[in-house]
Amino acid sequence: MAIASDAAPPGDAPTKRRGLVVNNSLDKEKVPFVTKDGSMNVTWYICGPTVYDSSHVGHARNYVTFDIIRRILEDYFHYNVKYVMNVTDVDDKIINRARRNYLMEQYRSTATDLSKVIKDLDIAMEEEMVKQQKKISDTEDELAKATSSRQKDDLADRVKQEQLKVNKINEARDSMNILKEKAMKLEGKEGIDILLGGNAADSLASQLDSKLGATVTDHAIYKSHTLKYENEFWDDMTSLGCGYPDVLVRVTEYMDKIIEYVQVIVANKFAYVANGSVYFDTKAFKEGGHQYGKLNPAAVGSSLLASESESNFETSEKRTSCDFALWKKSKPGEPSWESPWGMGRPGWHIECSAMASDILGDSMDIHSGGHDLQFPHHDNELAQAEAYFHCHEWVRYFFHSGHLSIDGLKMSKSLKNFITIKEALTKYTARQLRMLFVIQSWDKSINFSTTVVNEALGKERQFKNFFANVESYLRQPPMEGVQRPGDDEKQLFSRVDQAQDQVRERLEDNFDTAGAVTELLSLVKDVHSYIDKCKSAGGKPQLALLKKAAVFVTKILTVFGLSEAKNNEIGFGSTNQAGSTGDLATTVAPYVEGWVSLRDKVRSAVKSGASQVSLEEIKGKLMELTDKDRDENMVDAGVCVVDDGNTSKWRLDDPKILQRERDERRLKIKEEKLRVLRQKRLQKANLLEKHESASVSPSELFKTREEYKDFTFDDRGVPSHDKDGNELTKSAKKKVEAVYKKAAADHEKFKASLAKDPQFLQNMQKELQEIDSDISQLEQDR
Amino acid sequence: MAIASDAAPPGDAPTKRRGLVVNNSLDKEKVPFVTKDGSMNVTWYICGPTVYDSSHVGHARNYVTFDIIRRILEDYFHYNVKYVMNVTDVDDKIINRARRNYLMEQYRSTATDLSKVIKDLDIAMEEEMVKQQKKISDTEDELAKATSSRQKDDLADRVKQEQLKVNKINEARDSMNILKEKAMKLEGKEGIDILLGGNAADSLASQLDSKLGATVTDHAIYKSHTLKYENEFWDDMTSLGCGYPDVLVRVTEYMDKIIEYVQVIVANKFAYVANGSVYFDTKAFKEGGHQYGKLNPAAVGSSLLASESESNFETSEKRTSCDFALWKKSKPGEPSWESPWGMGRPGWHIECSAMASDILGDSMDIHSGGHDLQFPHHDNELAQAEAYFHCHEWVRYFFHSGHLSIDGLKMSKSLKNFITIKEALTKYTARQLRMLFVIQSWDKSINFSTTVVNEALGKERQFKNFFANVESYLRQPPMEGVQRPGDDEKQLFSRVDQAQDQVRERLEDNFDTAGAVTELLSLVKDVHSYIDKCKSAGGKPQLALLKKAAVFVTKILTVFGLSEAKNNEIGFGSTNQAGSTGDLATTVAPYVEGWVSLRDKVRSAVKSGASQVSLEEIKGKLMELTDKDRDENMVDAGVCVVDDGNTSKWRLDDPKILQRERDERRLKIKEEKLRVLRQKRLQKANLLEKHESASVSPSELFKTREEYKDFTFDDRGVPSHDKDGNELTKSAKKKVEAVYKKAAADHEKFKASLAKDPQFLQNMQKELQEIDSDISQLEQDR
Repeated sequence: MAIASDAAPPGDAPTKRRGLVVNNSLDKEKVPFVTKDGSMNVTWYICGPTVYDSSHVGHARNYVTFDIIRRILEDYFHYNVKYVMNVTDVDDKIINRARRNYLMEQYRSTATDLSKVIKDLDIAMEEEMVKQQKKISDTEDELAKATSSRQKDDLADRVKQEQLKVNKINEARDSMNILKEKAMKLEGKEGIDILLGGNAADSLASQLDSKLGATVTDHAIYKSHTLKYENEFWDDMTSLGCGYPDVLVRVTEYMDKIIEYVQVIVANKFAYVANGSVYFDTKAFKEGGHQYGKLNPAAVGSSLLASESESNFETSEKRTSCDFALWKKSKPGEPSWESPWGMGRPGWHIECSAMASDILGDSMDIHSGGHDLQFPHHDNELAQAEAYFHCHEWVRYFFHSGHLSIDGLKMSKSLKNFITIKEALTKYTARQLRMLFVIQSWDKSINFSTTVVNEALGKERQFKNFFANVESYLRQPPMEGVQRPGDDEKQLFSRVDQAQDQVRERLEDNFDTAGAVTELLSLVKDVHSYIDKCKSAGGKPQLALLKKAAVFVTKILTVFGLSEAKNNEIGFGSTNQAGSTGDLATTVAPYVEGWVSLRDKVRSAVKSGASQVSLEEIKGKLMELTDKDRDENMVDAGVCVVDDGNTSKWRLDDPKILQRERDERRLKIKEEKLRVLRQKRLQKANLLEKHESASVSPSELFKTREEYKDFTFDDRGVPSHDKDGNELTKSAKKKVEAVYKKAAADHEKFKASLAKDPQFLQNMQKELQEIDSDISQLEQDR
Repeated sequence: MAIASDAAPPGDAPTKRRGLVVNNSLDKEKVPFVTKDGSMNVTWYICGPTVYDSSHVGHARNYVTFDIIRRILEDYFHYNVKYVMNVTDVDDKIINRARRNYLMEQYRSTATDLSKVIKDLDIAMEEEMVKQQKKISDTEDELAKATSSRQKDDLADRVKQEQLKVNKINEARDSMNILKEKAMKLEGKEGIDILLGGNAADSLASQLDSKLGATVTDHAIYKSHTLKYENEFWDDMTSLGCGYPDVLVRVTEYMDKIIEYVQVIVANKFAYVANGSVYFDTKAFKEGGHQYGKLNPAAVGSSLLASESESNFETSEKRTSCDFALWKKSKPGEPSWESPWGMGRPGWHIECSAMASDILGDSMDIHSGGHDLQFPHHDNELAQAEAYFHCHEWVRYFFHSGHLSIDGLKMSKSLKNFITIKEALTKYTARQLRMLFVIQSWDKSINFSTTVVNEALGKERQFKNFFANVESYLRQPPMEGVQRPGDDEKQLFSRVDQAQDQVRERLEDNFDTAGAVTELLSLVKDVHSYIDKCKSAGGKPQLALLKKAAVFVTKILTVFGLSEAKNNEIGFGSTNQAGSTGDLATTVAPYVEGWVSLRDKVRSAVKSGASQVSLEEIKGKLMELTDKDRDENMVDAGVCVVDDGNTSKWRLDDPKILQRERDERRLKIKEEKLRVLRQKRLQKANLLEKHESASVSPSELFKTREEYKDFTFDDRGVPSHDKDGNELTKSAKKKVEAVYKKAAADHEKFKASLAKDPQFLQNMQKELQEIDSDISQLEQDR
């Protein structure tokens, strides 16, 4: 790739910085990293998973590695990265696996006769063995006739691979003999399940597939298979703390664009149609002035590598053996889509070219994937895009993550060293796995062994101890005591500045995270020495300085995704596994959930209490307690709880707001109480007044009234003549008689009440006083 | 300041970036920001507080503003900033305030006679009034004689200021008449306190200080005063979310270096000694080729400004009126230090020059402070440092934060619009205050009014709504459903890229945070529109895209200190106030504390339950419930609780570890149970065996035994002759008789037991079976 030698490297101060250099697979060496338009925008396409099985630690290495580099570009070099990932959900492996799983499940669910199953398995293994041996002898014949040394190597490799399959069948046979005995002892169905759980079932599945595969036509069978493993993949990524892509492209969502892409390549005369399939024309491509196999020219023509990527291509249709399928005519029992060439499905390589081009156009800054994808996948992608765009630089930088082996061996199910991501995460935390990758070169092979794991755990422990040490000091008030920096402080300050430069140098050198960790641990050592020196001199280390160093270390660990600390925080940020990000609500959810649910349980336990009467007291106490807990403790902690049976709802809010709302609620209740009390008081007061007036004997009723002053009264005390001696008028008489009658009756009632309770008036007055005191208490509280 | 025109501006991609320009007070215009050595290291000295009183919102504006700029430099432009702050803990204002407080407290604590206090206050006010009026007429005389217009302006201003003091005394007199009435009604001491709490006490304090000030010689009086207000200052900074300085320099810790600094300036002939004081020689300085008053040349010679900064300098000792004190001879009642010129204390300006030079050397990148410090403080600092270093560019960039007024008026205690930071924080959250400063230009005056506050609250609300909207979508699985981006998605993707460029442009333009917020809110609007469009089309917005936009908005708010979200998180990160950082334990402490304390309360409520018997059931239930809560819910949440009466202890730990410990604990309990059960079983089985053998009638005892086969038995069934007809030997006879006796006794006991409970054997067998079943249950559970 041509990079102008005077292009300023990115980075903040060009005069001081060498700038970022990266290992570009297209250059086979470290070259300066400069984006297409010299801006801070980086476009990146990463080959995502083919979702046919669970992901293993080899996949983890690939995705975590590029997650780390993405974070360094975004959070350290401050690029604006657009990270595009694909999911391959149409593919030979998927078709194979889904169809076989489906057919085996069909077989299993209908099988009832154990001896028939045993017979079926035996026949299937025998047939496969014969087939396999035929294959070996055919390949050996070919090998004998081969002329070029490359051809010989390829064919010898193929023989070895086929021999491995024979070994596998033999192993399956041995293990079946053991399973058979077990199965015989069990009831029918259980015995059948045991046998079909063994390795012999692989042969039966192959046999069923070749017999019945063509009958499987329901797309839903493939969809449910890919969905299951895609979801599992995202779960794994989340557990590992890998960020989601900014754009996700799935093959099944892109069929129209893929077909269009193939059409353009055909129109550009770099592809040809043969029997409903479309092939890329490598000869025409080379003659058009392009280079085929830019990443791995030596691999071009390797039939072994080519065949690994396409299990059932039709060599006879191809013009040269290097050509590869862009579009495959569908066979019966394969998912298929309409196209100008008939029903078919896309080849593996074309998907990525078409989808990446749709999102990123005719050039991208970075394309990445595992080392094993260099040829043919990535070289074919490049060829397709160049053929489509008539360009020569579709990808500016190709990054390939190194291979991962287990204890020095290639991971494989037959070697029993196949470790899924889920299994690995039961033994190590995501942070430990990530640390393991951080302390390795991202583009070199690594060996997943106890030694390497222990090295990662050891480094994690060193950082843990450092944070614990610094934090123990930082619990003191930071600005207390003498602050004037002495020589030791000034020296350590420079040391922190120096470490920042060193880490930058390391990261600018092809993302040398291992080197950066070494620099950090060297700073950690110097901080410990400074603390020790202060201690032995009877002094106190300077807290602001310790914090500066620890914040820097934390910041770099955060860039690597090893820490979840916030800006200016210290440490790993959480006792949870690295990568489980989330906002406060997520962070505290377990505690609040538990707290709230405890509260619910206490309430429901009390509600369901058996012996009614004796429980009243404790019930009251507990209900009051939990109400107070909700309205005070939880409110003060910023937790708003809405009672809702056994599963109360909660949310976080500003405590100030919740307190205000609660106070308003309480005020409302108080106002209502006050209203009721005042009404009650009015009624009582009226009643008391009535009783008090009834206490007057009817004979005294008129005599004490001002209006009857100087009147003449009869012996009952009813006025008969006015103050001038005139007899009352008839109507006046009628009026006073009515009043007298009413008063006499009231007085009789009063006397009866008094007889019943001589204190009844006093009691009523007392009640009234109590209400008054309640009212004034409530009024004061307002 | 000279900046090479071809100097590359900092920033990541020079070809695309204009780079940061800043308002440098030394240039009076925006100039490119380039560090001294072109590196990413920035040295910064900020004038910190003079700790004599509580800080107010004007201070908040200054410190929050520079905290924001510091964060932008560190977290956005990625400079490595060394932030040095001083604390002035020796100063005229401190001496004055501390000494008066001390003398007043002395007076207050010994005063017993109310009428004497009234008299003292009256006299003090009268005396001060006379003094003040004398001052006014003197100044007016001077004014009449003044010739230059500057002098006239200055003196007229001084008259106004002195008139204000007269008004204040009059006000104090009025309010004292009211207080007097109140005080008379109260008992002696209380009345005295009321009077001394009024404004009249200011006059008394002045009088006491001029009479007794010289007797106050204890340094501890000043120290405790400054310590109180310094601690208050740090509390305020923490509440406001302002980061601590990297280095803190206090005057009292720097006396040796300050004296040394003054000595060098004297040796350099830019200062002279007069009567135990040292003055800066502005004439010599100018003649030495330096410029005095670089920041505010117009202010040079303003006696008003100069006198404000030094309340009691001796004009007579100075060669020209512009000269200022570097070292002040101490008067009695002032804190003092030994020096080559006798006992004394440093001038205000020299502290900063000496301390900043000690940490940052002969040149710093940034010096900042409030606008009102330009002259004389900062200009004098510059002069001192240039005189010390013989240099011309001690400070490369001088930043001055704008003034803050309250409802258009200057803040002052007499105007009753003096708002301390603590008061402001009872009305608004730290985030709201910070937002208020963020949406203003940092270097312009601002008016703290309802309008401005409401604008800040409104913007905060817009961001809140945005986050809530996005979060409601992000609760769904992020990669579910169709992911292929359509035109709307591609457009919004570009919009996010564009917004990033726009925000960068704003921040590069003299930290235009207000403009950046406007750009963010414009992006927010576009995201809402996109969501609405998706909704009305019956579709779903693309989650990865929403997240990308929201993460960017969050990131910028985090840079401004408005959000506490972690990397890649969305929102404000916490419902707590901005700035309250902390680790997980701190974050979740309220929830765990509340949860645990609820549990404690339920337990103690149950323990203190009154009516013993009827409560047993509910007690058992609640205890079991809370135990389970501790061992399951809390353990799963990573909370380890150790029961401890009413206040159980808790700590956070890895749930996996807690679960393992709990399981081990449970296993131990189970093993112990099993051990006890097995022992019990053994005992029961032995007993049963004994009873079963006793069930045999003694007459059948020997007959059924193999060893006595074909023997002859007597009528009790005891063997008398062996199978050969020989009579048993004596010893044999003795043995069988003993056995018979024991068996007969056992059988009698057996019959008695049987009579008591005919089922007793069956019951024992049943018990044994139950134990066996318990054991096998426990064994299975293991």
